[in-house]
Amino acid sequence: MKNIIIASTSTLHGGDYLDYLLPELKLHFKDCKTIFFIPYARPGGISHDEYTAKVALAFAKINIAVKGIHKFEDPTSAIQDAQGIFTGGGNTFLLVSQLYKNNIMTILAEAVKNGTPYLGTSAGSNICGLTMQTTNDMPIIYPPSFKTLGWIPFNLNPHYLDADKQSQHMGETRETRIKEFHAFNSVPVLGLREGSWLDVKGEKITLKGNLSARLFRQNQIPEELENGSDLSFIK
Amino acid sequence: MKNIIIASTSTLHGGDYLDYLLPELKLHFKDCKTIFFIPYARPGGISHDEYTAKVALAFAKINIAVKGIHKFEDPTSAIQDAQGIFTGGGNTFLLVSQLYKNNIMTILAEAVKNGTPYLGTSAGSNICGLTMQTTNDMPIIYPPSFKTLGWIPFNLNPHYLDADKQSQHMGETRETRIKEFHAFNSVPVLGLREGSWLDVKGEKITLKGNLSARLFRQNQIPEELENGSDLSFIK
Repeated sequence: MKNIIIASTSTLHGGDYLDYLLPELKLHFKDCKTIFFIPYARPGGISHDEYTAKVALAFAKINIAVKGIHKFEDPTSAIQDAQGIFTGGGNTFLLVSQLYKNNIMTILAEAVKNGTPYLGTSAGSNICGLTMQTTNDMPIIYPPSFKTLGWIPFNLNPHYLDADKQSQHMGETRETRIKEFHAFNSVPVLGLREGSWLDVKGEKITLKGNLSARLFRQNQIPEELENGSDLSFIK
Repeated sequence: MKNIIIASTSTLHGGDYLDYLLPELKLHFKDCKTIFFIPYARPGGISHDEYTAKVALAFAKINIAVKGIHKFEDPTSAIQDAQGIFTGGGNTFLLVSQLYKNNIMTILAEAVKNGTPYLGTSAGSNICGLTMQTTNDMPIIYPPSFKTLGWIPFNLNPHYLDADKQSQHMGETRETRIKEFHAFNSVPVLGLREGSWLDVKGEKITLKGNLSARLFRQNQIPEELENGSDLSFIK
């Protein structure tokens, strides 16, 4: 049975890395002594080692050890052996490129479908949807495909931001960008605000955190979904 | 000799479409009765016809007719015959996909290198650089390549935005995204603020408008370049 936490962000403004999620993660990874971390997204270009060290520091607070997947000669068998898996944020194009390059995509999809507890934040959450086509990230590398893991039957837009009506900037709002996506794609998109996460247990998807989320469907007016909602109806 | 205007945005806050650029465009397209418009980027998902009508309305103010490239059975020969060309903004992934699909990329590169006056705004400016990898757009469609026209020997980030130090949003700043690009690419990136444009005459590139631009190079501290600067040194 799938057992997944899909978080909009790793960090809340003014908080430490993963702090707001730690009580939830303690339960989520309760059977894990060690989790394997996928550091491929490299936020701000930091190294795999630096990124893994940062994650280890946070998980130490709930007595869970962290090992970076980049340390294994064979990352595919590491994924199969993992007690729990966390994919951190950064650049989604880079993350997806590396998952394909290291032949991890299929094996990771299977492991988590079979019940390995998974946590994603930001880019690590983007890949839980059908495609990475609603990421906010810059295309710094050309991935072999935009197709991702499909553990949920829709796409995500993490760090979702409402339009700032005071802004004089003429770049597209997040809503306009998602509308452009829906000019060519029928996949629903869930805008997940910072502080929200999805709790996936089997086929049941629940919106957690204190905020509502915004659901975009092709040719429909966007809809606000209250925190605590069962989102299993989104397809 | 190349004769190109590369603008950060089509529209300034509170202004009409292309208004702030019209005096410049009157000179730029002075030998053109009709220009051909490439509407492929479809901002907000509007149709090619709707987009072309909007552009025609703006160019009517300077007595230039506009014809959408999508109206031609053979867009490649249209590009070769064009007196002037304008590519509008919208989604860069879509624009680049369509340019490749319609076999226009090479023919467009040649026509403009040989002197056909060109105007780009936003996505239409992104494609003037070496690659589209520093676009702000959402990857709504998978293009066959990120390689673009290379009329200037660097990349652009249009609608460049300085970090908002008051913001509590944890998504990456524009500067962080460009830093991630430079973790893997050595191409310089010019952050072009709204209201700025590049004037390209042959190999000479001049920064126009009232604002400075921000130059990012791999492993270097970003640099502010004053308006009016000769940018031909950037390589």
